[in-house]
Amino acid sequence: MNFMNSKTPKLALTMGDPAGIGPEIIVAGWRQMITTVPCKPIVYGHPEFLDRAARMLNLNYKIQQIESPFAAEPSEHQIPCLKACSDDALKIEHGRVGIHAGEAAYHSIITAVIHALLKKVDAIVTAPINKKSLNLAGCNYPGHTELIAERCGCTNFAMMLYLAKNSMIQSPHGLAVVHVTLHTAMQNIFREIRIDTVLSKIKLAHDFMLSIRGTTPKIGVCALNPHAGEMGLFGYEEITFIEPAVKLAQEEGMDAAGPFPADTMMLAGKNGDFDAIVAMYHDQGHIALKLLGMHSAVNITLGLPIIRTSVAHGTAFDRAWQGVAKPDSMIEATRIANILARSRLE
Amino acid sequence: MNFMNSKTPKLALTMGDPAGIGPEIIVAGWRQMITTVPCKPIVYGHPEFLDRAARMLNLNYKIQQIESPFAAEPSEHQIPCLKACSDDALKIEHGRVGIHAGEAAYHSIITAVIHALLKKVDAIVTAPINKKSLNLAGCNYPGHTELIAERCGCTNFAMMLYLAKNSMIQSPHGLAVVHVTLHTAMQNIFREIRIDTVLSKIKLAHDFMLSIRGTTPKIGVCALNPHAGEMGLFGYEEITFIEPAVKLAQEEGMDAAGPFPADTMMLAGKNGDFDAIVAMYHDQGHIALKLLGMHSAVNITLGLPIIRTSVAHGTAFDRAWQGVAKPDSMIEATRIANILARSRLE
Repeated sequence: MNFMNSKTPKLALTMGDPAGIGPEIIVAGWRQMITTVPCKPIVYGHPEFLDRAARMLNLNYKIQQIESPFAAEPSEHQIPCLKACSDDALKIEHGRVGIHAGEAAYHSIITAVIHALLKKVDAIVTAPINKKSLNLAGCNYPGHTELIAERCGCTNFAMMLYLAKNSMIQSPHGLAVVHVTLHTAMQNIFREIRIDTVLSKIKLAHDFMLSIRGTTPKIGVCALNPHAGEMGLFGYEEITFIEPAVKLAQEEGMDAAGPFPADTMMLAGKNGDFDAIVAMYHDQGHIALKLLGMHSAVNITLGLPIIRTSVAHGTAFDRAWQGVAKPDSMIEATRIANILARSRLE
Repeated sequence: MNFMNSKTPKLALTMGDPAGIGPEIIVAGWRQMITTVPCKPIVYGHPEFLDRAARMLNLNYKIQQIESPFAAEPSEHQIPCLKACSDDALKIEHGRVGIHAGEAAYHSIITAVIHALLKKVDAIVTAPINKKSLNLAGCNYPGHTELIAERCGCTNFAMMLYLAKNSMIQSPHGLAVVHVTLHTAMQNIFREIRIDTVLSKIKLAHDFMLSIRGTTPKIGVCALNPHAGEMGLFGYEEITFIEPAVKLAQEEGMDAAGPFPADTMMLAGKNGDFDAIVAMYHDQGHIALKLLGMHSAVNITLGLPIIRTSVAHGTAFDRAWQGVAKPDSMIEATRIANILARSRLE
């Protein structure tokens, strides 16, 4: 294809849980993914599911089964698929939790991670998995993020959610949200909110948004307690941990501010006053993100040796394999992975 | 005034902290408050601040100083003011925390609460106060809600936030959000989330929205933990407390559902799938509400023997007495108090 060259990033798209919407959103979004900003996507999974999705969607794609990413010839008419799981995957039931679906998802991810670490691909983009199926397959992780981080030997990593400019997000650079704690019970978040953990997340947010906007980004840091603790009346974490972390970030030259009450902060993020927001826990970030257009949000794992983006939604078992799933988030995740891979390749 | 009669509700509007935006939002919103749905508003506070606000805003209102609510003659040209505080209030500095401001705010509220309990007025609508000023005046409450509830001898009360239909809220009946815990450190919320506390909030939400929409309202209940705890993986409160409370509410004939992940829940609320949402803690509700148009949100205290609504914003000391504060929330709070008072008077 004439718009690709040796610097065009190779992106591993893992198909996710084949019982969910992963295969169909990859197929539904394929044309847009490959043409918006030129890239070479390669699906990691089982070619049968892509074929099945293409037939369901009445899209005339040739599925190119390959053994190595070097053989991939992605085009507007052809989807290369590296077969990363056994034919046991074909035993899955659409829309159901099951061991074979979990195994297929797991092997697709692991193969893509290994290829990324070996630089056979430049980034990975993951379609959604189901945690219960993954657990049935003997893989006990709360999510993709923790699994990939462990396999890469990382402890300082973070999930960042990124929303490009849309009708709700007013900054031309979009809005990123990074979480200090994530997939953990609310009772357990307090032990994880410390000066070092908050500071490391501020840094990750800073580095990411610097790569997106090119100049020093503005980072807003959420308080943990209502009204930012009201000077200690409703909790001390702001004074003891969050404020010192913000000061340290400022001393290191970052444009960080806070802690501010989380409700005010999220509105300020929407209004474009900040490029990135550091949230203290899962729902603090996610409530805002869902309201601000989560269907096109991208999940980016920061702090890994590899580039990894992901859709920000789940497997949607209740709507899978009906031809109704929207590929917006998958397309956007691929676009962002492409931007990040290009900035590393240049 | 010919559109008023003996059934027209008398509403006590407390001026709030006079150093903040209370007086000016009452004056700025006066015409709209009094004409949209006929009511008899009476300001509780100090007439000097209303006069000052009217001059600042170039609005030609006569301030009618009264001793008793029965003497009030509100009109499109006249604002009745029951002097509820001493002239010490005139020593305040605009936009500053101070004991005199706290005392003036406190006495205005208490007088209005007593008049409401004595049925001299039919409802009270409160402009914002500053907690620090209130504390300086020897009054140690986290907010209006707790102060009024204590003075009314109530323990089962709740703050509900209500957003009428707007460009973001799709239900014609608006969206109400009630919180199980509110002005407390996050570390302390766990002891307050129990079957009985969740159930009582579901009931309050049900009763309120029933009075607004006239038919059984749909109540959605948020989970506490991310992903609603993922069946116990990330916390047990859903299984132990929230789910049993929802079941009990259903057995009592309420249309309650949940617990659902809070991020999904808030989006469903926006989309009109629920009339009211029960949130587990302050920010869970407030992050969504601020994004959905908090400037026109109304704060309603449920479970009191009196009707009380309030603006949903603070004193905004940084913008007070500059003629820029928007009266939307004050107008809406008055409109809702009027609806609730009428439903009790009829």
